[in-house]
Amino acid sequence: MRILVLNPNTTASMTTKIAAAARRAASPGTDIIATNPAHGPASIEGYYDEAISLAGMLGVIRDTPDVDAIVIACFDDTGLDAARCLTDKPVIGIGEAAYHFASLISNKFSVVTTLARSVPALEHNLHRYGLWTRCARVRSSEVAVLELEHSGSDACNRISAEIGRAVAEDRSEAIVLGCAGMTDLAQSLATEHGLPVLDGVSCAVALAESMVRLGLKTSRLGGYAPPQLQKMAVEA
Amino acid sequence: MRILVLNPNTTASMTTKIAAAARRAASPGTDIIATNPAHGPASIEGYYDEAISLAGMLGVIRDTPDVDAIVIACFDDTGLDAARCLTDKPVIGIGEAAYHFASLISNKFSVVTTLARSVPALEHNLHRYGLWTRCARVRSSEVAVLELEHSGSDACNRISAEIGRAVAEDRSEAIVLGCAGMTDLAQSLATEHGLPVLDGVSCAVALAESMVRLGLKTSRLGGYAPPQLQKMAVEA
Amino acid sequence: MRILVLNPNTTASMTTKIAAAARRAASPGTDIIATNPAHGPASIEGYYDEAISLAGMLGVIRDTPDVDAIVIACFDDTGLDAARCLTDKPVIGIGEAAYHFASLISNKFSVVTTLARSVPALEHNLHRYGLWTRCARVRSSEVAVLELEHSGSDACNRISAEIGRAVAEDRSEAIVLGCAGMTDLAQSLATEHGLPVLDGVSCAVALAESMVRLGLKTSRLGGYAPPQLQKMAVEA
Amino acid sequence: MRILVLNPNTTASMTTKIAAAARRAASPGTDIIATNPAHGPASIEGYYDEAISLAGMLGVIRDTPDVDAIVIACFDDTGLDAARCLTDKPVIGIGEAAYHFASLISNKFSVVTTLARSVPALEHNLHRYGLWTRCARVRSSEVAVLELEHSGSDACNRISAEIGRAVAEDRSEAIVLGCAGMTDLAQSLATEHGLPVLDGVSCAVALAESMVRLGLKTSRLGGYAPPQLQKMAVEA
Amino acid sequence: MRILVLNPNTTASMTTKIAAAARRAASPGTDIIATNPAHGPASIEGYYDEAISLAGMLGVIRDTPDVDAIVIACFDDTGLDAARCLTDKPVIGIGEAAYHFASLISNKFSVVTTLARSVPALEHNLHRYGLWTRCARVRSSEVAVLELEHSGSDACNRISAEIGRAVAEDRSEAIVLGCAGMTDLAQSLATEHGLPVLDGVSCAVALAESMVRLGLKTSRLGGYAPPQLQKMAVEA
Amino acid sequence: MRILVLNPNTTASMTTKIAAAARRAASPGTDIIATNPAHGPASIEGYYDEAISLAGMLGVIRDTPDVDAIVIACFDDTGLDAARCLTDKPVIGIGEAAYHFASLISNKFSVVTTLARSVPALEHNLHRYGLWTRCARVRSSEVAVLELEHSGSDACNRISAEIGRAVAEDRSEAIVLGCAGMTDLAQSLATEHGLPVLDGVSCAVALAESMVRLGLKTSRLGGYAPPQLQKMAVEA
Repeated sequence: MRILVLNPNTTASMTTKIAAAARRAASPGTDIIATNPAHGPASIEGYYDEAISLAGMLGVIRDTPDVDAIVIACFDDTGLDAARCLTDKPVIGIGEAAYHFASLISNKFSVVTTLARSVPALEHNLHRYGLWTRCARVRSSEVAVLELEHSGSDACNRISAEIGRAVAEDRSEAIVLGCAGMTDLAQSLATEHGLPVLDGVSCAVALAESMVRLGLKTSRLGGYAPPQLQKMAVEA
Repeated sequence: MRILVLNPNTTASMTTKIAAAARRAASPGTDIIATNPAHGPASIEGYYDEAISLAGMLGVIRDTPDVDAIVIACFDDTGLDAARCLTDKPVIGIGEAAYHFASLISNKFSVVTTLARSVPALEHNLHRYGLWTRCARVRSSEVAVLELEHSGSDACNRISAEIGRAVAEDRSEAIVLGCAGMTDLAQSLATEHGLPVLDGVSCAVALAESMVRLGLKTSRLGGYAPPQLQKMAVEA
Repeated sequence: MRILVLNPNTTASMTTKIAAAARRAASPGTDIIATNPAHGPASIEGYYDEAISLAGMLGVIRDTPDVDAIVIACFDDTGLDAARCLTDKPVIGIGEAAYHFASLISNKFSVVTTLARSVPALEHNLHRYGLWTRCARVRSSEVAVLELEHSGSDACNRISAEIGRAVAEDRSEAIVLGCAGMTDLAQSLATEHGLPVLDGVSCAVALAESMVRLGLKTSRLGGYAPPQLQKMAVEA
Repeated sequence: MRILVLNPNTTASMTTKIAAAARRAASPGTDIIATNPAHGPASIEGYYDEAISLAGMLGVIRDTPDVDAIVIACFDDTGLDAARCLTDKPVIGIGEAAYHFASLISNKFSVVTTLARSVPALEHNLHRYGLWTRCARVRSSEVAVLELEHSGSDACNRISAEIGRAVAEDRSEAIVLGCAGMTDLAQSLATEHGLPVLDGVSCAVALAESMVRLGLKTSRLGGYAPPQLQKMAVEA
Repeated sequence: MRILVLNPNTTASMTTKIAAAARRAASPGTDIIATNPAHGPASIEGYYDEAISLAGMLGVIRDTPDVDAIVIACFDDTGLDAARCLTDKPVIGIGEAAYHFASLISNKFSVVTTLARSVPALEHNLHRYGLWTRCARVRSSEVAVLELEHSGSDACNRISAEIGRAVAEDRSEAIVLGCAGMTDLAQSLATEHGLPVLDGVSCAVALAESMVRLGLKTSRLGGYAPPQLQKMAVEA
Repeated sequence: MRILVLNPNTTASMTTKIAAAARRAASPGTDIIATNPAHGPASIEGYYDEAISLAGMLGVIRDTPDVDAIVIACFDDTGLDAARCLTDKPVIGIGEAAYHFASLISNKFSVVTTLARSVPALEHNLHRYGLWTRCARVRSSEVAVLELEHSGSDACNRISAEIGRAVAEDRSEAIVLGCAGMTDLAQSLATEHGLPVLDGVSCAVALAESMVRLGLKTSRLGGYAPPQLQKMAVEA
């Protein structure tokens, strides 16, 4: 089985970290093809970055036909609906993957993400996935995405402090880490705080493998009907 | 990996059919331990049957400690919350499993279940899982659970007719079959109607395997805290 | 008129206290038959206790046919839906009774219950009753149910402190006491805090009397259709 | 106990019918004071009629201080919130009373009211009471309020036909009659259709009696705080 | 174009202030006819004041036929639905106008209003307009309406402090001032806090002008159908 | 005042039609700059088309700095959130504009759009705007966007037929036309069906003018904070 793990931003060190997390989560026999677009934003923090990354990431999907499933490795699930129109292979966002698993092991969870500017897009996703009622609060740690790439930053401490506030104030039973760049922090934070801390990358790889094994395909009726590509004047 | 697949009713032929579906869905190396309680209702159709089956099914869970995950193989996810208090191993209901996967491959899905009396309990579950907004309608085919065990019944035709109405009237993009006893019908109905038709048994086995591989455990904070068993006068 | 007031746990002192509250609330001419199952949990604190008490409490209902209405005297409304399938006589949970009355005398109310582990089940009930939007917050006082049976505990002080926080933080206009064991505290707490404090036992007895006088019966269409008892192999 | 049953419109024959229903529902020893304002609309069908009836009906409440509870006998619960500011005695609308009881005996109910123009105000009320999720649909029978006062009209047949559609199309388990003028039809329609049919007048009288017996008062904190009457220039 | 700007309370100084704000917002060529009823409450603070002001304010609308649109200049949108039945000309409440514009320039906004007693009516409006999900919180500054008419009060400081709390605690991106009497404070508070602060009077005038230019009329189907005025016995 | 009216697809005839509608709606003195990207899809029908048009449309916005407000003239409000990050000038989508005005003149409206594949994206928008509760149903006429550009098609008849079904089945009080290409049909359809029929282009131009006159700017706090453009590797 081959799974495309697509980091929609252009920061290669982040792709490397994501790839490592994906491979740890994958079953034996699953190949992880981790990549990122050549062009686009270095990080995705809010609506504009998300929009401007779409052409690049959809191009990677079109150029990588020989996979069984696709994981979109940005926590705002960049381009998820568009990607599902492009192929009937399973397409999973790391945000939605973490939310679904969190709702299977807790009555209520909180999300701890990066900057305040990213919060509305995540709230918006939770509403449309239907899992909003399971999320106590989306919290920002005010750690920028690229800070997570710098060893020596106190990013982990600030994220841990925000988890502490989530447990105390939100009565949350689990924590979802709201950025692909936090994937290596989940285990130690879970141990520190004594509750499940979910990382979307591993959750999404596991869901993708399951869907391939079950033979589940995206529906072609309605909203995910294949686009009529011939009508494109010139694709961006 | 050992997964307990627990049919909460006492109809052995149904347990056999569920076991076969679970084994088809399982990865190599996964053992499926399929069983049902010795005592309790022959089928679970509505709130009362569900309540009266709980003592038996929770007893099976307590008596089968040596497993890695538990699948509750009744579509109303009988006793799911109680089972999650009893162990921190993953516990997955086949209803919720199908709803979660359906929401990953469609914008909106319909459920086709057995009798009208079962509909409110399923609607109630969808509300609390948060996935109610993704479900267009819970429909009853007026096929009783035990009719599904009789070859020669026209149960499949009536279920197929109800799927036809779901596609025409609900604008649903996928169908969830709302009974463990329908597990063998999913593939042919998907082919017939040209859209994804999900069976909860296979969905739940796949989720359980994923959760075991990811090391996900049910949270012990809040609603799933372990019960204080010593306070029981005499357990039922 | 005869009303069965059923404490689903096995703590006789609590049944006695509930019976007294029920009799204070009842009209002249109403007989209160207060009882509890012989077997089951000593208190109901969370999903597991609730599940394990069902066989006992439904057995009491089956064994007490000669009543006009049934009050389920546990604040999580244990087995309410199942009991409504078993008889068309009015069945009222003390939780729902208090929520309905609170929504008739306030724009928004808070619930003050016992332990944090009980909160999700109450939130879940409020969602399904539809009255979630009227409830500002379900708060735990961290007073265990059986502490309420011990004179000399500071349980009442802790409950009062939590009510103070509800008024200050939730802008609630009324308080619902979230445990049958708190029934004797309502009046003094109302006086102390200057707002309505509702006790579910008296609310449920009053609703049950009303429904009997009005001749209201539980619908037999749909989710409360009578179970097909003959299909039970052996009832637990 | 004295209960003011206030018909907010000026049609005396309707007040007489409402009074009879209220007295049938009342316990021995309860006095029903049924009245209507001297001025205002002959029937209340929609937002404008409701607004224009408020000064009259609030005047009646101010002029009738010597009662224990107040029932507002118009199905759109005319002036309910304003009346609750004016006194801490229980004030119950017949619409809300019927919705609360219907949600205690069914999973889902439909409302059958008079004209289409009245539907949005009722939907609006259901939303704010929180019971919207329990109502399958508010249906209009296109019977005008005053037609119900004319013997010989086929109003009852048209209402019955609409109930038939509610059962067939909405999967409703109970019916709420959406007009005070339908109070005398409930019993025969229930028998005809084989499901509970609720009349708001009797439901509200029963709730009012219960609240007086329980000593429940409207909260004075927040939205129902007493108005500062001295600031009125000239009251209408 | 002539716009009736109707202050539903009887405080002439407030009408003068509202008129000035309306004229500042109006386009050249738009005549603002600002008025208030002769009789009724001096301020509208909660449900009762609102109810008792309706007869007067609807009378003004009936007596001022020669206008193109109507602005109801009280933040609880007093009598909005009733006024829409009375004419198909655009009728806009200043509360709804501010909410609609706030939702076009922010992901989430908070409302800062006068007294706690007014909060539930505003929450209720937000629910029915559908914009509840866009509002983080309705906050009271505990500044009474008529305090805003007294120079020398510290009303503005208290409102500013409440805005500070909204930004810090609610993560709101914009503030809606919840009283017509605050119309002159918006600009300085926006500058002070560095985020949009919306005043309903100017928002409503702008919407009314737009609707007149676009030729938009209130629908006459359903809930806003014209009332049957002949059935009024005597209008209050 | 200069308003950029941006058709996100590349069909020039549609831009011309949109420009004409915008100019009819604009006040004297408002300049309409109507344009479309040079590259991208010829029509936007569903999630993929929307995604692939974003780079082009955001480029047009960056390249047209000298305007006072921006109207996005595609009914799915393509790139609305991203555009609001790019500038604090008012940005209005034609979908949201029509929904906001429809909710000011009706209790409930229906949308009649083009193809079924476009429906989920519109439902999704309605949810996040908060106006979902005001929309009875999003209906597809199965008229493709580019059919609307061909004189001689029976597109208008099919749209009219769908409006007829909306009135009969949804009890809608107004209709929103769900495609920029339908802008010239609104008036005749309103006359034919006797209810308001709203066109998003004119609604959005009117809102944009209002916001410029009121000086309303998009908030820079939270989700619409300006993007950090320097971090882009190479913008698409």
